[in-house]
Amino acid sequence: MSRTDYETFDLGDFRLTEGATLRDAKLAFKTYGTLSDARDNAIVYPTWYSGRHWDNEWLIGDGMALDPARYFIIVPNMLGNGLSSSPSNTPPPYDRARFPRVRVQDNVRAQHRLVTEHFGIDRLVAVTGWSMGAGQTYQWAVSHPEMVPRIMPFCGSARTAPHNFVFLEGVKGALSADSAWKHGWYDAQPTTGLRAFARVYAGWGFSQAFYWDSLYTEMGYSSLEDFLVGFWEGFFLERDANNLLTMLWTWQNGDIGRTDGFDGSLEKALASIQARAIVMPAEKDLYFPPEDNEHEIRHMPNAELRVIPGVWGHFAGGGVNPVDTKFIDQGLRDLLES
Amino acid sequence: MSRTDYETFDLGDFRLTEGATLRDAKLAFKTYGTLSDARDNAIVYPTWYSGRHWDNEWLIGDGMALDPARYFIIVPNMLGNGLSSSPSNTPPPYDRARFPRVRVQDNVRAQHRLVTEHFGIDRLVAVTGWSMGAGQTYQWAVSHPEMVPRIMPFCGSARTAPHNFVFLEGVKGALSADSAWKHGWYDAQPTTGLRAFARVYAGWGFSQAFYWDSLYTEMGYSSLEDFLVGFWEGFFLERDANNLLTMLWTWQNGDIGRTDGFDGSLEKALASIQARAIVMPAEKDLYFPPEDNEHEIRHMPNAELRVIPGVWGHFAGGGVNPVDTKFIDQGLRDLLES
Repeated sequence: MSRTDYETFDLGDFRLTEGATLRDAKLAFKTYGTLSDARDNAIVYPTWYSGRHWDNEWLIGDGMALDPARYFIIVPNMLGNGLSSSPSNTPPPYDRARFPRVRVQDNVRAQHRLVTEHFGIDRLVAVTGWSMGAGQTYQWAVSHPEMVPRIMPFCGSARTAPHNFVFLEGVKGALSADSAWKHGWYDAQPTTGLRAFARVYAGWGFSQAFYWDSLYTEMGYSSLEDFLVGFWEGFFLERDANNLLTMLWTWQNGDIGRTDGFDGSLEKALASIQARAIVMPAEKDLYFPPEDNEHEIRHMPNAELRVIPGVWGHFAGGGVNPVDTKFIDQGLRDLLES
Repeated sequence: MSRTDYETFDLGDFRLTEGATLRDAKLAFKTYGTLSDARDNAIVYPTWYSGRHWDNEWLIGDGMALDPARYFIIVPNMLGNGLSSSPSNTPPPYDRARFPRVRVQDNVRAQHRLVTEHFGIDRLVAVTGWSMGAGQTYQWAVSHPEMVPRIMPFCGSARTAPHNFVFLEGVKGALSADSAWKHGWYDAQPTTGLRAFARVYAGWGFSQAFYWDSLYTEMGYSSLEDFLVGFWEGFFLERDANNLLTMLWTWQNGDIGRTDGFDGSLEKALASIQARAIVMPAEKDLYFPPEDNEHEIRHMPNAELRVIPGVWGHFAGGGVNPVDTKFIDQGLRDLLES
């Protein structure tokens, strides 16, 4: 999918936490609405694993909490997603399998520069995001507490749990089992591996009950196999394998406790958050289970746990089910009015 | 692993439900204890996905419910497990990738012949089993209600749920992404695919909380990666890829409703079960969730749902955690005394 309806912020020579410097690094983003003269109506809404800014648009609209008539909504594309600097679009020598490791902290540092240097904003209204976008949301609240009065991370966590790490080892293993992957030095996409990656992912993305109830029919799929091919394989076949692996590393190593000043302590980092938070897991999310967030909010000074009920699992936060979308929108409404 | 401490029952030309005939088919089994003169003390305890008879021995022993001093315990090896007729040990033309599809019904028919023809037993004390062994347990109660007064299926189901099917598509996809698999016509095992298979499986076998609490250390593993390599990759590297895929097909297509006389109805088949049943899911089993069994027992005339509490997930029934083993043993004790 090729779209050109976005802007790019030049990060220059961008030094990453793990040591590499991405020269002439780019942060792709799109904005919705108009920045007020006082620059006091901005919301940051980062993308998720393999998502692009347009994949966030289901939660933005007239009459919704994220209303462009009222707010200036900035959707920055995650490094590695194919629009911001990524294995697929970076020139040698840091191209393809040589693309360096990126941490959530790096993503938020790049976004912070966009917000402050490019837009001259010194305080946001809120940060929100789904899945890895939720991880970036937490990171914003930890890295820049003075700028972030409100957060609503949904279907994500402040630190990637060990089981979540293992789930990702599985999808990574499926992709890299394809010898056409060539350790990242493929000329054509390793489609067998991408399809296997997708089939593994399928079991994780939605709950047991979702499949029991054949709810994929509500998404327009005519059979279980049609869903596996049409939705899942289609989903990942349009991605680049190295991009997926770059973002996967970011995900596996997500941990706000690794931010400077917290000695690796998740709990210390959580305790430092000043934002009012509505933390919103999905009841049957298989890789970001509500238990992860229950642990978090016990250490956050001003957090409410609000569980999305129902059987859509992780994809409750993906904008595919209107009931869940309404629930999420209401959460944002409550947060923004507080 | 090569052991010779078992017997083999000749099934002769064994016709499978799907149409093929396995000529000179073999059912490998082992017995524990002594068959009484009245032939009234036999318990059948089938194996699970890739398990072999020795993998069931943790639940058999002096002073346990399955006490060889009292009962005659028959452990038949599932077709495809490498000991009974399997892709890896069947001569051409039905060898390797040509090994035919086997249903749970076929396994139970073979076991029924062993029990009746070889041992002359016309009524069992009970049938029990873990995981796919639980599926065979249900099938025994449906195919031979007059022979089966008690069952205790644990961590399994009477019909493979759609999500469970999808989980298996994922592990299958990871294995078959390895071009060394050659659609089953490999000369050496496709070890890259087997390792990927294992890594995918790792996320499913134990619960999120198990990993959060690092309980693999109680199993003797020194780190998460040590567990992924030492337990999981080791587990599947000693299996044959075609054998795994044969049993996987059996699993994906498990459904007692497909037994003759039930018109494909799971509920009708459940209602026909005469056995007293203790149905025992594990609280946090990710692919045989308790919900599957809750549905089942509503249709069974004489069933109790008894959930194994705790965080060990599917492997609560695998004999690796003493607390869960004690719980399962107590269930069997209660069942056998009733």
